[in-house]
This record gives sequence, structure tokens and C-alpha cells, in this order.
Amino acid sequence: MTRHELRALLEQVQSGAATPEAAHEHILQFLRQAPFENLGFARIDHHRRARQGFPEVIFGSGKTPEQIAAIADRIVSAGHNLLVTRTDATAYGAVTALIPNAEFHPIARVITHSVATPDPGRGTVLIAAAGTADLPVAEEAAICCEAMGNTTDRLYDVGVAGLHRLLAEHARLTAARIVIVVAGMEGALPSVVGGLVDVPVIAVPTSVGYGASFNGLAALLGMLNSCASGVSVVNIDNGFGAAAIASSINHLA
Amino acid sequence: MTRHELRALLEQVQSGAATPEAAHEHILQFLRQAPFENLGFARIDHHRRARQGFPEVIFGSGKTPEQIAAIADRIVSAGHNLLVTRTDATAYGAVTALIPNAEFHPIARVITHSVATPDPGRGTVLIAAAGTADLPVAEEAAICCEAMGNTTDRLYDVGVAGLHRLLAEHARLTAARIVIVVAGMEGALPSVVGGLVDVPVIAVPTSVGYGASFNGLAALLGMLNSCASGVSVVNIDNGFGAAAIASSINHLA
Amino acid sequence: MTRHELRALLEQVQSGAATPEAAHEHILQFLRQAPFENLGFARIDHHRRARQGFPEVIFGSGKTPEQIAAIADRIVSAGHNLLVTRTDATAYGAVTALIPNAEFHPIARVITHSVATPDPGRGTVLIAAAGTADLPVAEEAAICCEAMGNTTDRLYDVGVAGLHRLLAEHARLTAARIVIVVAGMEGALPSVVGGLVDVPVIAVPTSVGYGASFNGLAALLGMLNSCASGVSVVNIDNGFGAAAIASSINHLA
Amino acid sequence: MTRHELRALLEQVQSGAATPEAAHEHILQFLRQAPFENLGFARIDHHRRARQGFPEVIFGSGKTPEQIAAIADRIVSAGHNLLVTRTDATAYGAVTALIPNAEFHPIARVITHSVATPDPGRGTVLIAAAGTADLPVAEEAAICCEAMGNTTDRLYDVGVAGLHRLLAEHARLTAARIVIVVAGMEGALPSVVGGLVDVPVIAVPTSVGYGASFNGLAALLGMLNSCASGVSVVNIDNGFGAAAIASSINHLA
Amino acid sequence: MTRHELRALLEQVQSGAATPEAAHEHILQFLRQAPFENLGFARIDHHRRARQGFPEVIFGSGKTPEQIAAIADRIVSAGHNLLVTRTDATAYGAVTALIPNAEFHPIARVITHSVATPDPGRGTVLIAAAGTADLPVAEEAAICCEAMGNTTDRLYDVGVAGLHRLLAEHARLTAARIVIVVAGMEGALPSVVGGLVDVPVIAVPTSVGYGASFNGLAALLGMLNSCASGVSVVNIDNGFGAAAIASSINHLA
Amino acid sequence: MTRHELRALLEQVQSGAATPEAAHEHILQFLRQAPFENLGFARIDHHRRARQGFPEVIFGSGKTPEQIAAIADRIVSAGHNLLVTRTDATAYGAVTALIPNAEFHPIARVITHSVATPDPGRGTVLIAAAGTADLPVAEEAAICCEAMGNTTDRLYDVGVAGLHRLLAEHARLTAARIVIVVAGMEGALPSVVGGLVDVPVIAVPTSVGYGASFNGLAALLGMLNSCASGVSVVNIDNGFGAAAIASSINHLA
Amino acid sequence: MTRHELRALLEQVQSGAATPEAAHEHILQFLRQAPFENLGFARIDHHRRARQGFPEVIFGSGKTPEQIAAIADRIVSAGHNLLVTRTDATAYGAVTALIPNAEFHPIARVITHSVATPDPGRGTVLIAAAGTADLPVAEEAAICCEAMGNTTDRLYDVGVAGLHRLLAEHARLTAARIVIVVAGMEGALPSVVGGLVDVPVIAVPTSVGYGASFNGLAALLGMLNSCASGVSVVNIDNGFGAAAIASSINHLA
Amino acid sequence: MTRHELRALLEQVQSGAATPEAAHEHILQFLRQAPFENLGFARIDHHRRARQGFPEVIFGSGKTPEQIAAIADRIVSAGHNLLVTRTDATAYGAVTALIPNAEFHPIARVITHSVATPDPGRGTVLIAAAGTADLPVAEEAAICCEAMGNTTDRLYDVGVAGLHRLLAEHARLTAARIVIVVAGMEGALPSVVGGLVDVPVIAVPTSVGYGASFNGLAALLGMLNSCASGVSVVNIDNGFGAAAIASSINHLA
Repeated sequence: MTRHELRALLEQVQSGAATPEAAHEHILQFLRQAPFENLGFARIDHHRRARQGFPEVIFGSGKTPEQIAAIADRIVSAGHNLLVTRTDATAYGAVTALIPNAEFHPIARVITHSVATPDPGRGTVLIAAAGTADLPVAEEAAICCEAMGNTTDRLYDVGVAGLHRLLAEHARLTAARIVIVVAGMEGALPSVVGGLVDVPVIAVPTSVGYGASFNGLAALLGMLNSCASGVSVVNIDNGFGAAAIASSINHLA
Repeated sequence: MTRHELRALLEQVQSGAATPEAAHEHILQFLRQAPFENLGFARIDHHRRARQGFPEVIFGSGKTPEQIAAIADRIVSAGHNLLVTRTDATAYGAVTALIPNAEFHPIARVITHSVATPDPGRGTVLIAAAGTADLPVAEEAAICCEAMGNTTDRLYDVGVAGLHRLLAEHARLTAARIVIVVAGMEGALPSVVGGLVDVPVIAVPTSVGYGASFNGLAALLGMLNSCASGVSVVNIDNGFGAAAIASSINHLA
Repeated sequence: MTRHELRALLEQVQSGAATPEAAHEHILQFLRQAPFENLGFARIDHHRRARQGFPEVIFGSGKTPEQIAAIADRIVSAGHNLLVTRTDATAYGAVTALIPNAEFHPIARVITHSVATPDPGRGTVLIAAAGTADLPVAEEAAICCEAMGNTTDRLYDVGVAGLHRLLAEHARLTAARIVIVVAGMEGALPSVVGGLVDVPVIAVPTSVGYGASFNGLAALLGMLNSCASGVSVVNIDNGFGAAAIASSINHLA
Repeated sequence: MTRHELRALLEQVQSGAATPEAAHEHILQFLRQAPFENLGFARIDHHRRARQGFPEVIFGSGKTPEQIAAIADRIVSAGHNLLVTRTDATAYGAVTALIPNAEFHPIARVITHSVATPDPGRGTVLIAAAGTADLPVAEEAAICCEAMGNTTDRLYDVGVAGLHRLLAEHARLTAARIVIVVAGMEGALPSVVGGLVDVPVIAVPTSVGYGASFNGLAALLGMLNSCASGVSVVNIDNGFGAAAIASSINHLA
Repeated sequence: MTRHELRALLEQVQSGAATPEAAHEHILQFLRQAPFENLGFARIDHHRRARQGFPEVIFGSGKTPEQIAAIADRIVSAGHNLLVTRTDATAYGAVTALIPNAEFHPIARVITHSVATPDPGRGTVLIAAAGTADLPVAEEAAICCEAMGNTTDRLYDVGVAGLHRLLAEHARLTAARIVIVVAGMEGALPSVVGGLVDVPVIAVPTSVGYGASFNGLAALLGMLNSCASGVSVVNIDNGFGAAAIASSINHLA
Repeated sequence: MTRHELRALLEQVQSGAATPEAAHEHILQFLRQAPFENLGFARIDHHRRARQGFPEVIFGSGKTPEQIAAIADRIVSAGHNLLVTRTDATAYGAVTALIPNAEFHPIARVITHSVATPDPGRGTVLIAAAGTADLPVAEEAAICCEAMGNTTDRLYDVGVAGLHRLLAEHARLTAARIVIVVAGMEGALPSVVGGLVDVPVIAVPTSVGYGASFNGLAALLGMLNSCASGVSVVNIDNGFGAAAIASSINHLA
Repeated sequence: MTRHELRALLEQVQSGAATPEAAHEHILQFLRQAPFENLGFARIDHHRRARQGFPEVIFGSGKTPEQIAAIADRIVSAGHNLLVTRTDATAYGAVTALIPNAEFHPIARVITHSVATPDPGRGTVLIAAAGTADLPVAEEAAICCEAMGNTTDRLYDVGVAGLHRLLAEHARLTAARIVIVVAGMEGALPSVVGGLVDVPVIAVPTSVGYGASFNGLAALLGMLNSCASGVSVVNIDNGFGAAAIASSINHLA
Repeated sequence: MTRHELRALLEQVQSGAATPEAAHEHILQFLRQAPFENLGFARIDHHRRARQGFPEVIFGSGKTPEQIAAIADRIVSAGHNLLVTRTDATAYGAVTALIPNAEFHPIARVITHSVATPDPGRGTVLIAAAGTADLPVAEEAAICCEAMGNTTDRLYDVGVAGLHRLLAEHARLTAARIVIVVAGMEGALPSVVGGLVDVPVIAVPTSVGYGASFNGLAALLGMLNSCASGVSVVNIDNGFGAAAIASSINHLA
């Protein structure tokens, strides 16, 4: 139950659309659920959706397939949607043993499973990627945005060395409510996009590039130093992080 | 004329609140203004407000007082509000010779001058700062937010080593539409704030700290690696950048 | 024979609980043992327990299984407890060929074998870990603490993004005599724990995280810059080092 | 009121040394004090002594003399001892205007003022410094240790290039309960000291050295990689931090 | 005498425009000049013009005004044009004491004095600068280009955040034979320019920017990782270096 | 159609060598081709040859064999020459399924296929390599130069530690119009070459070396700091980038 | 023929021990040998022994087994001793196909083959290593020293955490003419050794250590900042480099 | 009394040139001197000359003029020669108050005072410097070499961009017993020198250069990665360190 759901429920009581008894029971049911569940190796934060609008997300890297599956099972059992990032086919196998209908997105390296319809976002999140090699990160951002209830638009291979490819899509850029820009190498795309739109731009550096990209450091520094205002930055290759921010903005009342 | 102003004008025509002739003249007047003005050492972007919602901002660092004053004069003459960041009393002297009523904010190192009322933002931007030494950056963010039409709330010296100081202000945190978190040293405050709210958090690392803070690098890396989702990051000590992003989010329709 | 054992022996002589002859013989036996033993590729420090309270520990990384087994054999033959860190199943195989009852702890990547009961520590060492991916390092710290005679308590997956998980365990935190805090990503957990307790906090950065964690550098810098006092830091992923310090503190008279 | 004081008070009640009424009043008086006091630019943590054993310490760097004096005044007014680090003669002037008897330690750049006798530590903290240029940091550590109630011993200019200078003081080394080792350049002294004692060693890198010391980075990395166990590390030039940890260890029950 | 001059002379002999005797004397005169002149603190390379097309240039940084003046005097005495970079008014004073007509360019921090007309370059070198704060470096490049015989064109304050300012000058960009692009912050301008022209682009990172520009490192890495082909890079703030390369290209037969 | 081809065509019309009708049709045919072609994962820039003199080049790293083959097929279908860099035998297999006559250069890791004769460059590009381990990068540069229409000369294993090997080839050095210098370790070769020639030198650092080469960082910094003028630098191991710049210079009118 | 051999030969002529005719022939034979031999991928420097006292050494890393074998064959055919570093069993196989008696040293990863007795060094080179994991680098240094004609002594596992292991070998330390010190982690051993001896100390950092050793960077910086005078440093893991310097010193007349 | 002096004394006794009584008294006199003298802020190592061949040297940086003068006074009083590095005119004033005849070398920033003739070195130490801006470091090396009893030769401004300046001095290079090479920027000079001589080369990087020299880091890395064997490296700007190593080599028996 998010704070928006709570307010809606109380308004239903006010308007007579819900009885106080039903609302009381509904709130109690939420409160009965322990705020977190301790599996020993993990404490699942069952109130995260109430506190932050989306259930706990499993960061797959560094966890065994068994740990991922066990946590996934507890999240779904608690009636929450499932989102696992930085994962692979082996972990997917372990998850489907417990949650047969879970979906795997191989380019994005993401597992999803929908139990309930997420709150819809208010506008479109556009995901722009500079090059083909940036697709895994861009797709992670896109899939996560969609899992969190946002409509997305994808604009791939529009790097600044061939500016006409980007300018040709000016209409799609300005139609977006939030733009996620994914780029490796020098990471210049967010600066150019940031100069063309008046909505928030979230920049995601990727580890794509020759030696002196230093695994994404060059793109990261480029984005942090963007001369365009309105550009904020997340960690290298962190498509999920960009999606979480975009979704948070897109769900503002 | 921002795109919101253009739409409002057309709606006035539709509703009869404005005549087609008046609207025609108004739009022409905007189009007659050159998109930028070349001073030789600077090209002032007079269409930035139309394109991005706020007029060009002068980044004072590396410019002479005379250059700052000349650019400021052209911006104000074009009917735009003035905002100069990273500046000082000397530049302020040069500006006031041309724009007598300009204001100087010494802690924030910012010059402002208001010609027209900016579009109001929809909610409150809360600026939280971890320590007293972070105030110059926090104030830069706050003054810039206000200059861009946003209501602000300030919450200073709430670093994580004394968590009760932050938790005591939980209500102000959750009342904000966007939170800017300013911190030096290890930069942990955005992670804690990010876990408490469901709105976007913009993290600003500062150059405050002992030797191994490496002039803000430690805080920057800390914020980029935040385990809380919903946290995006700007450059070290870049209070203005955080304000621009916050304002962009706060002005979304 | 540690200095505490020497003092105890002399007190026994004073009180008549031991004869001077027996004590004399006991001390001689220790002195007859060469201070170190040269295997060519290694010089085993047999007086380390006397000098530092715990026998030489084998750092497995970069040694062949044969070298590890040979050194282990000499340590156990000298009557000392065995502790091998950063090791694996292959080296364990070589060790058990010589020391059949040695134990392997796969998550912690540690081999232990107890020949004598170590001096007991005075209080509990709490090991807190921010996330599930930090467990190998946390377990290395915990197993090493136990091998050195300390009682331990484990508190895992209590990262700062869900602060209630940590605050719910406040009692266990304050019951500890020393707290080891293991965290990757931004490494903020030691700062928060350091603000809640009045006992020494030993921070262990881990190499867990997205790209700009730079294999633990972000967490390391975060911990070194902690705004909480009472926090000291060891090398990245160095669970053993934290255990050695904690044990040293826990054995202070 | 620290937790040790609380326990002592309750034991006095048990033994009849204090009446329940007096104890009740004493505890209430503490609870009446607000946990922190908001000066706008600073929130003074008046419960820090209760929570962590020593009152809030003012980190002078980045604060104006007026801010320092105002905070100092509130701390002393609350009946707590004063400790200001990273400060200078100007701030001292501002402080003495309000607190005439405050003391300034120019080499250590520290201001102190004692209102009440701090809890005494259990043993001696030895501060060893590698070279004469490390004295400001060593003195900061020593003065802070003393302000926190610890007995200190100073051993200066005992760098590893002339090992006999250190070995000649072996008795003082082994007499200490905790050793703080301050060194710049390659920072090797903690490794050598760590091999000679069985008590905790806290290493403080300093920014002293030729170009490739990179302002203390070389010493910091050297200490983090110490081959001696029992060595933990604090930030570059952070004498206060080392003192806080040493004092925390030295006050363990 | 450059190699082009030597060939021209021999062709004059072939065509009868010069006598063998005159040519012989001319060549001898050159050969009589020592290849370098040793002032003790400096060895002036008098054959550099023969070998590389332009006389030795004095890098002023780290030299005393007296050393600069002495070297300048020897260069001019040998009949070569003078170019001093990274210098200031004090050194200019010392130089004019010996070479009264030398010129000082304060923004570029360059001293020039022309003794002979340099070989003219074949086309125009365009110097583009992203922002006003980049002017000192851009001017160093421009003045040096001109001193080496090149026609220049200046295009300042055309950073990528306001792309229309650059696109409005498309004709000047494509008219250039070589483009020098000077930019700080994220250094994205060379990538955009590189995608618009088919001539060589020489990128000069500047040390302009907020904290995480790390004094030009961000721009340097951005330019090295440019996704546009045809972009090569010189040192941070090295306007002279860019000019030398541009001139070398512009003088190719 | 490059801009040089366009001018040539118009001159043919002027001279009567071409009819206006044929020229008209030729230009229309070019304009009918879309400026880029969207494959979803890639947007192929079909006007790059017109804009920059050489068709789009495929950077193989991070693309699947199928993606490479699909893009290659579209480029060749559009009548352009094929150049794939950073590729391998697997991708070559996928390409030859569609373009049977494509060639693979295993040392250079490059695939080429010639559809039309490229514009010939004006002089020779010399590729000098410091050591045998630098050959893959040197060969990438050489093959790419040739694919772009340049005559090349190769001078391998002429590092500065045996200077006579380089000096023995002085004639070949001075015969070149552009010199590409490839070196790892300390990267000193470009400085020495830069002092011997008066043509542009393009320096390519390689990732060859012992530990403190930091994967080419040492060579990169060495080259950026070259005391020889006329040296510009590209990314670590970026032989293609050097070739593109050299070809751009070599095709200047 | 080294310069010492040349002088000896001339002295033999002077003393009548050699006829002018024989000496003449001997010198001619040397001069007839080309100074280097070009294999295309490598230029073998056959005069290196004359110029620097030892024939060209093959750095195996980055060369194919076939390239190594071909170069080795040419060196041996020219009558020089063979030394290949950073190599492996596969390359050894290729070498023995051409040079059946070549020897492989697996720990040191070195191939040697002696054709002629090298000039003997004047004293002993002591190789000290801090830990067992440093042996590959220490052995590379030792084998190379021996191949260059030096007597060696090995002192392994004498790290500073157990100082008595080193002090027990004081006599061997002071008997050496040059000391090579190999250490990873904090790299403190050279400072301690440098304070005990009055002969040159050559420090070799190794890549051994936990995370913040950053692959030998910590040890490298530690050694460069050594407070002991008389310590110079070579690249990380560069045992060969240390041997070459030691041998050069040990062969000084 | 160095170990060479001790041996000489014993040989005099053997030969009858000294009586046992006189020798006995001489040795006792040395032993009566305390090995070090504790001034509180410094422990002067009076046996350093016996142990390492040269008395303790005062590193002036970070010491007050009074501390320098006090230490200098004790060294001279003990009959040792004085050498203070990294000092200035103020400290020189304090020293001359106590030691009137002390000499100041302003370029080298060194104070010397000779009480006894140092042991003469066996050959010449050549100090080569790449550029004029490297002179302070080169002079520090030269003055220190001379103070330690070595004959020196200076070869300044012979950087690799004008190779003929170096090659013209080939005879002086080969006449040296040890070569110290001082260079900033890319630090390539030691590699070239190392390929020309067969004696030890000690490389000193300087902090001279444009932005990406990073205060000497580029030169340091360049020298550590030198492809020439026989090159070892000291800290950035550490002329004294190079002198100490050169002198140690030059005094080998």
C-alpha cells in the first residue's frame, strides 16, 4: 500500500465508496505484514513499496542462484512484483522452479514477474542510446521503467558524431516527460540532448570504449561535467538506477 | 516565451481571451529577437528560456568582472532574469554599475536580479546539508532554486553521524516534492534520505573533508554508488546544477 | 606462550600452585623452540603467538597448495592453531593429506584447525554486513574472530537504504564490545553504526558494486572519510585484518 | 550522562548510596535537555556524550570564527567539555571572547576547555611519529587523547630508516595499551610497530613527502596494505580520528 | 633555411635565377651557424627551423625573466622570429630591454617578435572555443598559428549546450583547412565538430570546470574517447601544441 | 559522393565533359539515398562519405557477429567500402555468409571489402612501431590507412633504447607525408621522431608494458606531454583513430 | 666485444701478448657484424653487448612462441647468450626446437642458454623477498643476475612484520655489494634494509596484496617515498629490470 | 667512522703504522658517542655515517627554521658535515646564527657546511637535465653529490626533441661512472641515455609540464616504464635521493 493508495482509500471512505470497516481491515492487513523478513543471508524489505512506491528489487550480482530464487519467492509470496537485475540464465532457471511464469530479458539481463499492475506513470520515458554497444544498459533501463509502470520510447544509435540522426528525431525527444541518455566513450550525448529539451535528463555512462575510457570513467566524468543544465548522473552501466529515478519523477503527483 | 506560455496564448485565442492579432504580434515579437547575440568573447543564448524554461545563466568562474557585467547587461536588456553563479564582490561591483538593483548573496556567491516573475514550481524543494561547512554549496542551490520560481525549505547540519537530527525532521522530508542533499566527507546522507522518501533525490558532493576526501572525490563516488534507488548525482560543489534539475522536475506539467 | 600466560605462570609459582622447577622447565621448553623455521620459500614465525597473541596466519593467495600444506604442517607440529585465509578447496585437499581433521569454510574461503583452546576474548564481536553480496568478507571476519577465541554475533543485510532493518537490531548493536562493519557500494553503514554505538567500529570496504565503485575504492574512501568518530578502516575485502584488530582489542586486559 | 554513569547511578540506588528520588531527578534533568539544539547553520548534538562517551567535537575547517565561537558557547553552556580541531588563532580569539579560559595548542591547531573531568581511560596511549614534520598531526592526536581523559606517551622521530631509534624504546612500546602511529612518506612505521606489539595499532598517514607521496596517498595505501595484523587506518592527517578510536578502546569496560 | 627553401634555391640554380656561387655561399652561411648554442642553462637549437620549419619556441613556465630574455636575444640575433609562451608582463619587461619592439599578447600570455616573414600556410586554421573561460587557451593557439604564418578564424562561445550557435556558423567551419577545438568541462565540442567537417580536428582540453573536471582531466578523457574520427588531442591547456600541429599540417606541400 | 567529387562533376559540366542531364541525374541519385538507415539496434550513416570522405566504419567491439554482418551488408549494398575494426574470426564468418569476398586481417583484427576505389592520398603514411608487441595496433593503423586510399610504409621495432635502429631509417622518416608512431611502455618514440621530421606526427599509445604502465596510461601521458611539437595523440590502442586522422590530412586538397 | 674487452685486447697488443694482426682481425670481425638484423617484426640489436655489456634480452610478453624462437635463434647464432623473460612452457617448446639445450626456469618464467661465459661481477647480489608470494619476481631477478655473470644470494620471506627474521641475517645483508629487495603489499622492506646497509638498494614492487594494493601501486608508491636514502625503484614485478641495474653496478670497473 | 675507516685503522695496526693503544682509544671515542641524540622533536642519528657512509641529512620541508638550526648545530658539533635540503633563505639565516660559515645554494635550495673531507668517490657523476626548468632539481642532485665527495659533470638542456644536442656530448656521457638524468614532461631522456651507456642511470622525474603532466606523474610513469635496461627511478623532484644512490654506487670498493 503506497501513500497514494492510502489517500485514495480514505477518500473512498469520505465519499462513501468504501465502508470504514473495509478500509480498517485493509489497513490492518498491511500493518500485520512484518516490515522485513529475515532469511539469514538477506532481510527482505516488505514495506519498501509503501515507503518508496516500488517493492524491493533484487540486485543479482554477487548472489547465488539459490539466494536469488529464495528472495524472489518471498517477494512474490508477499504479493509484490518481481524485478531482478544483473542476472543470467542460470538464476532464471532457479527462479522459474519456484515462479514458473517469470520472464527473462536476455539483453537487459533482467528477470520480471508481474503480480499486480503497478501505478501508471504520467508521461513517456524516452531512452536514448549513443551506440549499438550501449544496448544492454539501455535495455536494462527500458525494461525496468516498464516494470515500474512507465510508458517508454527507445531511440538507439544516435551518437553525436552523426548529429542528423538525433536531430531527425527531435519530435520524439520533446514529446518525452523524462529522457534517459545512455552513452559510453566520451559520453557527450547527454550534453547535446540536455540543450534541446526542457525536461529532466538522466545520464548513464557505459563501460564501452577504447583503453582510455577506463571502463566508463571517461563517460562518467564527461556527464558530470556536462555544460548543459538539467543533467544528473548515475553509476557506470547502471540502467536500473536511471529507471528508478525516472519512474520516481514520472510518478510525482 | 516558453512552450507553456505559447500553449497558454493559443488557448486564450481559442477561448476568446486574446485576439488573433494580439497573439500574432506577441509571437512575432519573440521571433524578431535573434536566437543569440555575439559579443565576440560570448554568444548570449536569448532563446534558452523558450527552449529550456529559464534564461541563460552566467557561470562567473574564469570570466572577468567586465565580461560578466557586459553579458548581464545584455540578458537584462532582453527582458530576462539575471542569475550569475561562482562570482564575487568585485564582479558584483561591475554588475551594479550597469544594473543598480542587482542583489548579491555572499555565502552562495550568487548575483540575482529579477525582471519578471518566473513560472512557479508545483511543490517544495527541500535542501538538506550534512554539515555547516557545506553551507556555501547548499545556499547556492537554494538561491538558484528560488530564482527559478521554486519554493524552498532548508534543513542544515543533519549528517548521518547523529541520525536523530534527521529523523526528527521526517515530516519536512516527506512534505518535499524534490530533495537536494548536499554533503562532503563520505557523502552518505543521500543514501539515508533516499531510503526515507519516495520523491527524486539529487545528490551534491562537496569538497569538504580531510585529506583522503580528495577534494570531494570520496563524496562523489559515495553518492554514485548509493545503495538507495532514486538518487542521481551532479558535479562536486555544483549547487546550481542541482537546482536546475530540481526546478526542471518541479516545473513538469 | 603469550605474555599473559607467562604472567599467570609466575603468579602460580608465587601462590604455590606451580613449583619453580615445573615453571622453569615450561619456560625453557618455549625458549628451546627456534624463533622461526626456514623452509626456503617461507620462514615460519614460531614466536608470533608469544609476541602478538596468535600464531602466524597463512595468507593463501599467491602460494601453491603444496606450500600452504607444508607451512600448515609445521605450524600444527609446533603445537599452534591453524588459520589459512584466501584459500580454496584444492589447497584444502593438500592440507588434509597432512592434517586430516582440518576444517574448510567455503563461503569464507578459510581453513582452520584447532590444536589448543585460544585465550577467550572479553566480549562479543558483532559482524554487520550491508548486503548479501558482502557475505564472503563478513564470514571471513567472523570465522577468523572465532578461531582467535572471540564470541561473535552476525547481523547481515542491514544496509542504510532500509534503515529500519538496522534500527530494529539496536539492542544487539549496543551489546557488542567491538563492531566490524562490512559494506561495498558507498560504504555508508559504518558512519551510521558509528553514530549509534560508543565502542570501536572497524570498517571493511568490499569490492561489491557497479562500475564506479572501482572494485571497492568508493567504499574505502567513504569509510576513511566517515563523519562518525570511532571508525577505523582496513584494506578492501580484508575480513581477516578486521578480525585481527577486533581480537586484539577484545583481548586487552 | 554516559551509559556507564547511568549504570553506576542505578547501582548506587541498589546499594542505598543514592535515594530513588535523587536518581529520578538526575535522570529527568538529563532527559529534559533537548537532544540537539538548532542554531540554523548547525545542530549541536547534546546527547552525543550519552550516546558515545564524549561531547560533540567542533571540526573547525570550513566554519567561520563566529560560527565556531557560537557553537563552542552552546556546548560549554550545556556543561560539556570543549574540543575544537583544525582551527587557528583567529577562531581562538572569537572563542575567548565568550569562553575566556579556553586554551589554544598552536602546533596541534586545537582549542580545548575543560568543564568537567572526563572518564579516565584504563591505560596509556602511545603516540609515535616517524619524523619531525609529522608533529602537527601527532600533537593533534595527543592533545585530543588527553582531552578525552587518556594518559599519553609521546615517541617522536623514530622512522624506520634508523631502526635503532625505535628499538631503543621497546619498553615504552610494550607498556602502552594502544599505539597511534603517525607517518608520512612511505608510511612504513605502523608495519614495524605492529610486528613488535600485541595491542591495537592505529595508523595515521600524513601528507608529508616528496611529489609522489601525492599529499599522503602513498602513506595511506602503505598503511592499508600493512603486512602486520592489528593495524587499522584513519584519514590522512586525521590525528583527531585516531584519538577518538584510541579513546574508545581505552574506555572499554 | 628550411628544406623547402633549400629545394627552391637549387631550382633557382637549375633555372639560372641564381648563380652556383651565390647558392654555394648561402648554403655555407647556414652551415657555419652552430647547430646549437650553449648558454649553460640552455642550449638553443638554431637548426630547428631547418629541421622542423619553425625556430625554437621558448616555453616560459619555470624560466626566470633573465633566462627568457637571454634566450630570446640569441634567437633574434640568429635571425629567427621570436615566440615565447606561458609568460607574463615581468618577462616581457626583461625581453623589451633587449628587443624593444617585441609584442606582448596578455590574454594569450605570449610574446612575439617578427624578424622575417614566415612561410605562409595554405589554408585557414579555425579556432573554435566552447566558452568564454576557454579564451586564454584559444588565444594562445590563435596567436601562435599567426606567428607561424597561418591565416586564422576565431569562433568563440559555441559550446554544445546551445547547438544552434555552432550550426549557425556551419559555413565558416567547412571553409577551414584545419580546425582547433578548445573546450573544458566535458569536452564534447570536438566530437560534434568532428562529425560536421572532413578536415583534421585538433582538440585542446582546458582546465575550466567544476570539481570533477579535475583540472581538465574530464575534458582530456572526453576528447581521447571521441566517437568522431579525425580528432587528435594535445595536452591540457596546450594551445601552442595545437598551433604547432595545425601549422605543420597547413604547411604540407 | 564527396565534396571533391561534386566539384569535379561540376567542372566536367563546365568543360563539357559531362552533360547537365547526366550530372543532374547523378546528384539526384545521391540525394535519393536516405541519410541514414535504421536497423533498430543501429542507424547506418549513409551520408558519412559525403560529409567526411569515408563511409561509416563498424567498431566491432560490443556488437554481436549478427549485428556486424547485418550492418556490413547494408553498407556494401549502398555501394560503400567495408571496414570493420576490433573484430574476430567469428564475426568474419558471419560477414562472409553475406559478403563472400570480404578479407580478414588477423593481426590487425580488421575485416575489409572494397567495392570502389577510394580517393588516393597525396603522400605516404609511415607507421613506426617501437616493439614487436605493438604490431597488432600498428597493423590496425596500416590496414585502415590502406583501406582509406593511402600508400603506407612500415618501420617496426625501432624503440628508443636502440636509437641506431631508428636513425638508420632516417631517409624513410623524412620521405613520409605523415608519421604514425605506435609505442607502449614509456611511449618515448613520438618525441624522438617528432624532433627529426617536420610533418605531422600522430602518436598511438599501446597497452604493452609491465605493471606501472597501467594498461597504456604511462604511454598515453608520455605522448601527451611530448616535448616535441607537432605531436598529437589518440586513444590507447586506437590504430584506427590514427589512420583516420592521417588519411584526413593526406587527403587535404 | 664490450669496451672492457677492447681495452684488454689493446693492452695485450701493448704487452706483446697479442700480435697487431690478430687484434686487427678480431676487431674487424666484430665490425663486420651488422649492428642490427631486421626480421620484419623485430630488429635484433647485435651491438647491444658492445654498447651495454649484455646482449639483447627478449621480453616474451606479447610475442608469439614463433617470434620468440626466431629471435632467440638469431641471437644464439650471433654467438650471444640467450635470455628470455616473461615467457612460458609453450614458448620454451618452440625455442628448444631450434636450441635444444636451452633451459627453462618455471617459477621465474625465464629461458636461458649460455654460449659464452659472461664477464663476472665483482661482488654478490643479494635478493631479499618479503613474502612467499613474491618468489616469482624474486626468482626472475636472481636468474637474470646469474645469467649476466653475477654471484647471488637469496633471502626469502623476511617481511617487516617479523623483523627478527631479517635481523637474524644481518651478516648476509652487509656482505652483499648490491641488494635487490622484492616486496608487495605496503612495500616497506626496502626502507628497513636501506637503513641497515651502505650499498645500493634496488626496490622491486610486486602486485601481491589485498584490494587497495591496486596491483602493486601501493608498494610502488611506498618504495618511491622511502625515507631511507640509497633506494631506487623499478617497475612493478620487474625482476629483470632490477637485475640489469644490479649487474650494471656490479660490473663497474 | 665508516666501516672502511675501521678496516683501514685495523690494517694500520697490523702494519705497525698505528699502535693498538691509539686504535683502541679511537674506537672507544666513537663508541662513547650515543647512537642518537633526542631533541624531543627530533632524534639525530649520529651513527648514520658509520652505518651508511654519510651523516644524517636534514630534509628541511615541514621543519621550522629553529628546528633546522638546532639539528644542524648538533650535527656539526658531533663533527659531521652538514647538508640541508628543501630549505630557503629564512632557514639559512637561522643556521648561520649558529654556524656562521654555512653556505647556501639558492637554485638548489640546499645549505652545506663542510667540517671534514668526505671519502672521495671513484669516478664522475654526470647530471643531465632535459630542460632549463629542470635546473633546481638537477642542481640539488649536483650539490648533494659534491657534498658527499663525488666529482660531478653537468649537461643541461639536452632534451630528446633536439637529439643532436645530446649526441654532441657522447664523450662526456661515456666518461661518467654513473649518470643522473633529470627530466619533466614525458620523461623520455633516461630511456635514450640508457640506450647509449653501459653504466647505471638514475632517473629523476620533475614536476615540470603542462596540465596532463599531473605534477610529475607523467614523467615518473615514463621513467618506470623505460624500455632501456639499467634505469632506476626516484621520487618526483628528488634530486637528493638520486645523489645519495649515485654516491653509494660511486663509493663501492
